[in-house]
Amino acid sequence: MGAITPPSNIPGYDSVLIARERIKPYIHETPVLTSRFLNELTGAELFFKCENLQKAAAFKVRGACNAVFGLSEEKAQIGVATHSSGNHALSLSYAAGQRGVPVTVVMPRTAPQAKKNAVLGYGGSIIECEPSTSSREAVFAEVVAETGADFVHPYNDPRVIAGQATCSMELNRQVEQLDAVVAPIGGGGMISGTCLTLSNIAPDIKIYAAEPLNANDAARSFKAGHIIADDAPNTVADGLKVPLKDLTWHFVKNHVTDILTATEEEIVAAMKLIWMRMKIVVEPSSAVPLAVILKNPEVFKGMRIGVILTGGNVDLDKLPWMNR
Amino acid sequence: MGAITPPSNIPGYDSVLIARERIKPYIHETPVLTSRFLNELTGAELFFKCENLQKAAAFKVRGACNAVFGLSEEKAQIGVATHSSGNHALSLSYAAGQRGVPVTVVMPRTAPQAKKNAVLGYGGSIIECEPSTSSREAVFAEVVAETGADFVHPYNDPRVIAGQATCSMELNRQVEQLDAVVAPIGGGGMISGTCLTLSNIAPDIKIYAAEPLNANDAARSFKAGHIIADDAPNTVADGLKVPLKDLTWHFVKNHVTDILTATEEEIVAAMKLIWMRMKIVVEPSSAVPLAVILKNPEVFKGMRIGVILTGGNVDLDKLPWMNR
Repeated sequence: MGAITPPSNIPGYDSVLIARERIKPYIHETPVLTSRFLNELTGAELFFKCENLQKAAAFKVRGACNAVFGLSEEKAQIGVATHSSGNHALSLSYAAGQRGVPVTVVMPRTAPQAKKNAVLGYGGSIIECEPSTSSREAVFAEVVAETGADFVHPYNDPRVIAGQATCSMELNRQVEQLDAVVAPIGGGGMISGTCLTLSNIAPDIKIYAAEPLNANDAARSFKAGHIIADDAPNTVADGLKVPLKDLTWHFVKNHVTDILTATEEEIVAAMKLIWMRMKIVVEPSSAVPLAVILKNPEVFKGMRIGVILTGGNVDLDKLPWMNR
Repeated sequence: MGAITPPSNIPGYDSVLIARERIKPYIHETPVLTSRFLNELTGAELFFKCENLQKAAAFKVRGACNAVFGLSEEKAQIGVATHSSGNHALSLSYAAGQRGVPVTVVMPRTAPQAKKNAVLGYGGSIIECEPSTSSREAVFAEVVAETGADFVHPYNDPRVIAGQATCSMELNRQVEQLDAVVAPIGGGGMISGTCLTLSNIAPDIKIYAAEPLNANDAARSFKAGHIIADDAPNTVADGLKVPLKDLTWHFVKNHVTDILTATEEEIVAAMKLIWMRMKIVVEPSSAVPLAVILKNPEVFKGMRIGVILTGGNVDLDKLPWMNR
């Protein structure tokens, strides 16, 4: 069961305005691309917000930079820590490197070497754990106890949500008269940021979350009215395996219009379509919104839709359409 | 041996200004992207002109649109034709489709089905020939005799060169104070356009051509002082197999600083680096400039360099780093 009373640390829109100024020097205002082909295919007007072209190739630098650059001088000297084997690890390492702050990332020893190298390349330290929740939590607790580092959660953190919220602020300025925004949902950081911004500045824009059917805990939570967390869902969209937490559930519950799902095959086909027609590299998670738009023409036809392409970190030697 | 007296139909800069206005509604002003990582790796400042994000995913639509939209109404009704199995075929089909003009493309029957489908998708007609120069020329002559169509050569055509010349006009406006531009060379259409523009508006910018070592006929021509044409060079950069012709040789001879070459391995490594670090899809030909910049730091170190990414048409099921 999720929290019944709302959490006390829900970020407000003022924190988004502060985040925007704070992170501006360290992030890109990413471009919005369009594709006539994909418009004709979907019967909608799609505006792709290219966070795959963001620093560290993921929207997650927004939240990570907001957390790191919001630290007091004293706290910054002690440093930050997180556990992640994905884009949050790279992004926090990038942000900490920009400020010259120590950063420790707890990663499963089985994480891809490319991801480990990227963290090291940005100046982060890696502590390995076993690939299980219990080992990760035990090792991480040890790291925090030893270093006193500030824990920057990948999504259930008001600083992170306020940072991610700057993305739809840009999008709403770059594209006029959107009818809807579709973003992937895993833990809900990007969707929560989208809700935080749009509910304040453009409350008529509908917000859809797109989720892999194989990891549909958010869709089931949405229907059930409380958080349902799966243990270890398996999907090609590896950024979307994690469950909602109290803060992100608050935003999902209150501001999301619907959560739609796509199969693994639909996600891979949509990913390949984006590469082929738009000539950009996106990771599988980024393709889930297009997959659900293609699957649900009755919902999206005729709409002007912002589509968040959340990241571009993918192993070029193991593309998902080649393993099939 | 190439022509000794200069050809009579060399396009002037006025034709570039006309081309720019003529093709504006049908092409993108493509973005310029940068990568801090690649700057650090090369010791130079690189500005990537993303013609892979152009319509039909290739700079060739510039020249094709200039030729098609410059036709008289009478000639337009008869239509255009070309022989190509590559980006010029797609681009001419796109341009003709935009004007509603008939277009016939002679393609070897062995050309990839994806390319054939793309031509058909833009509304072009395909006449197949055998994969040999003699068959191609015989079939093409027949097509022209039967239809009376206007032949738009892939590069040795003043209209095409003037169209390609609009690319460096944009680049020179988008990036200040360039020291050099590096572009791939095959038949020399893009390089000739670059020479045509820069020799007129920014004659201090050096122009380097980048060529596969396996298809180094332009580099050998440049050293020899006359056109050398190879019969059937074999390179992963399949857009760069064709030889110089009189018009393009005129520009190369008079305005190019040097022609540098890269091996197949270097081209593929540079291509993968662009995908990995810049999160964009480029074809092998587009990667030859980065390959020669990485190979010749003594030439390029400290320079501000425009790098033309010429196209993004690649078979996603057969990536060159996977065949090795």
